[in-house]
Amino acid sequence: MSQWSKMAKRLSSTYTSKSIPSKSHFHAPIPDNVFPKGYLLNGIHAGVKKKPEVLDLAVILSQKPAAAAACFTRNAFKAAPVVVSQQVLQEGGGRARGIVVNSGCANAVTGSQGMQDAWAMVRATDALHETPASGGLSETLVMSTGVIGQTLPIDKILTGIKSLPPARLGSNFASWERAARAFMTTDTFPKLRARTFTIRGKEYRLAGMDKGAGMIHPDMGPPAPAGQLHATLLGCILTDAPVAPRSLQSALTYAVERSFNSISVDGDMSTNDTIVVLANGAAAEGQPEIDEAKDKEGFEIFREELTSFAAELAQLVVRDGEGATKFVTVSVEGAKSYADAHKIASRISTSALVKTALFGEDANWGRILAATGSVPLSAPLDPTRVNVSFIPADGTAPLALLVNGEPEKVDEARASEIIGQDDLEIRVELGLGNESAKYWTCDFSYEYVRINGDYRT
Amino acid sequence: MSQWSKMAKRLSSTYTSKSIPSKSHFHAPIPDNVFPKGYLLNGIHAGVKKKPEVLDLAVILSQKPAAAAACFTRNAFKAAPVVVSQQVLQEGGGRARGIVVNSGCANAVTGSQGMQDAWAMVRATDALHETPASGGLSETLVMSTGVIGQTLPIDKILTGIKSLPPARLGSNFASWERAARAFMTTDTFPKLRARTFTIRGKEYRLAGMDKGAGMIHPDMGPPAPAGQLHATLLGCILTDAPVAPRSLQSALTYAVERSFNSISVDGDMSTNDTIVVLANGAAAEGQPEIDEAKDKEGFEIFREELTSFAAELAQLVVRDGEGATKFVTVSVEGAKSYADAHKIASRISTSALVKTALFGEDANWGRILAATGSVPLSAPLDPTRVNVSFIPADGTAPLALLVNGEPEKVDEARASEIIGQDDLEIRVELGLGNESAKYWTCDFSYEYVRINGDYRT
Repeated sequence: MSQWSKMAKRLSSTYTSKSIPSKSHFHAPIPDNVFPKGYLLNGIHAGVKKKPEVLDLAVILSQKPAAAAACFTRNAFKAAPVVVSQQVLQEGGGRARGIVVNSGCANAVTGSQGMQDAWAMVRATDALHETPASGGLSETLVMSTGVIGQTLPIDKILTGIKSLPPARLGSNFASWERAARAFMTTDTFPKLRARTFTIRGKEYRLAGMDKGAGMIHPDMGPPAPAGQLHATLLGCILTDAPVAPRSLQSALTYAVERSFNSISVDGDMSTNDTIVVLANGAAAEGQPEIDEAKDKEGFEIFREELTSFAAELAQLVVRDGEGATKFVTVSVEGAKSYADAHKIASRISTSALVKTALFGEDANWGRILAATGSVPLSAPLDPTRVNVSFIPADGTAPLALLVNGEPEKVDEARASEIIGQDDLEIRVELGLGNESAKYWTCDFSYEYVRINGDYRT
Repeated sequence: MSQWSKMAKRLSSTYTSKSIPSKSHFHAPIPDNVFPKGYLLNGIHAGVKKKPEVLDLAVILSQKPAAAAACFTRNAFKAAPVVVSQQVLQEGGGRARGIVVNSGCANAVTGSQGMQDAWAMVRATDALHETPASGGLSETLVMSTGVIGQTLPIDKILTGIKSLPPARLGSNFASWERAARAFMTTDTFPKLRARTFTIRGKEYRLAGMDKGAGMIHPDMGPPAPAGQLHATLLGCILTDAPVAPRSLQSALTYAVERSFNSISVDGDMSTNDTIVVLANGAAAEGQPEIDEAKDKEGFEIFREELTSFAAELAQLVVRDGEGATKFVTVSVEGAKSYADAHKIASRISTSALVKTALFGEDANWGRILAATGSVPLSAPLDPTRVNVSFIPADGTAPLALLVNGEPEKVDEARASEIIGQDDLEIRVELGLGNESAKYWTCDFSYEYVRINGDYRT
């Protein structure tokens, strides 16, 4: 079909839609002193993306060796940077000093050239440190996001990395923000957050940035055992708390399951999903490391803090999901197991019918129920025990839609009022046990179809 | 939000799209003598739907008791007609004389009232026969489709059924077509097919009708054991071949797995999915029944015929999928097991990113690959063995996109030519074994979002 007849075909009918409201209010300045100590970073335009003003390369260096942990996509087609970062982590025994990220090209399904390029990014970043690594091991984790199946413009990227020695990096808000901007692809705002927390009177800081927008339905796990080597949600979290590497991985795996692995924009799992955490201990010279084996209580405080921070970063990805006009929390309660609750929450969160009903602001609980019932569970559902309700985000009264498997006479005006809000919660109670899970999702709009029907054109 | 501000919000941006071409050419007259003997049927407007000219009730009677089999949704929230039809089949030992179908209301999540109503439809249809059933058993299978959570206008339906004694039913094309029209909800054409087949020189006939459009991702199995009692793809297949009830169920279960359980419009499983088959033997008075235990070869001829016919009916549902502009066959070959191949084909067929790329006519094989790699399998994928290609429906040369895990230099003009066609096949070869599966799916369009964002309003 010619481009002309194609265009004619497209123009022959039109759809009108809600405009996608600006999401820039989710990004705001953060005071410099909330950022963790001992990190230097920057974001630049290296030339992966065509537009000259758009940042596409970030370098993050820890001023001292840090404990490092990561969770990577479980996709069988792992991108080269995923494979390389896994290897760096394993060979380095959970220690690292840097992170390098490019956007615009995913370096996925790029064969041996892709592997060479990912390693070249690692080595160029390693070379930025003023002191070389002990033992000559690589100390940089690498992440890429963008189009699949194209090789990186590696010369431009290496030139970019070399232009970022520590003297060209910074530690204030502006530096953090530039790094966060370099993560972005179809994101509409940089996703950057920071907070402080306290363990036994000692204050630490956490900062993190991530990116998402599409192909967002992560399922990430800790690095696979060596020998299984073979890899777009990207994120990194940096803290100045001192954490033992094994405990850092344990805390991250737990946190990722309840944050990044519990979000969905479109139900599609990427080949590049990666979350990295560094803990350099810069706020605690001489303090003992947080270690699960030695101080369970201190570890659990850190794990909860990391989980809640990861959930905050993960939710930003859903807020900025491609074409999203609503932010929806799906809570499944009263399950026999966390896995059952998580599976149902995931199914509701990915149902095209539920998501288009949310876009249409239609309180169509039948679709929620059909999605719930379609999941094979460890313990069979009893429809007569199931409750479904809408919880408005403004704190007003919940609205029961289904009680003990029977539909309520729903006040449609009230239902429209709740579903007309930008934030809401769908709560499903199974009445089978005490386990629960939350998922965060968005609606499915004309704009989603436009973005993804026209992505490469 | 007020209806006014909502409308204003909707109108603030517009999306242009390909028009959805008319699909009426998929429906055409069939000669009267191709329809199976011994069935009387009709479709009328009973009043479930508001518009007076729209058919919403079908009655199908076999003039003699027939072997009956069915596959029902595996959704935990089974609609009342599903529960009732299962019970009728079990109590009747796989024999039945009639089918009653309404559209416009699914009689799902309707509690005890829904069960009473479904039974009332069964009994009213039972009473249409000139000779009562032996032993007073119910002999009617019931199916409903439409909105979930509303009770049936049962008085109108019973009045409608009573108005359809055998004298008001017919056996010519017009009667079959009226019955098929009464199945329709958001379908744009009636789905009716008939064919003849031969076993050992004896000719038999098969006819069938079905409906679909949305909430189409069936997973149906044979009736659950009694005690699990507890609702939209509907279809029925009628034959004048003589088949033993147990063999009919065995053939149907096999056929459904390779037809209706291998289609997806939107990935959502309904509470009402039901496929019913009747075999009345009217073409073969005195002939022995087709029986798997007694004549494997004859049975296998029948099973293959039923499977290919079921696939034809199932594919019509995808052709008429809500908002669909393309018909796409997803073939997964070289798997270790049929289940692995089927899971990958299902994942590709439900990927929002693959489906929007198809709508946008973008040969984005990266999305196909990401979907393939996201499926947990019994045997791990080896990315270096995976091939992906597009097979045009016009018989011209296939286009390789990925060969042994490495991207081909794709002729984009040729890729656009293939993906610009209304029919195409995506073929994924895993290189792990000899098992294969096919799935049929459609693209994801603005029109899909419109239909499902505005369904109840």
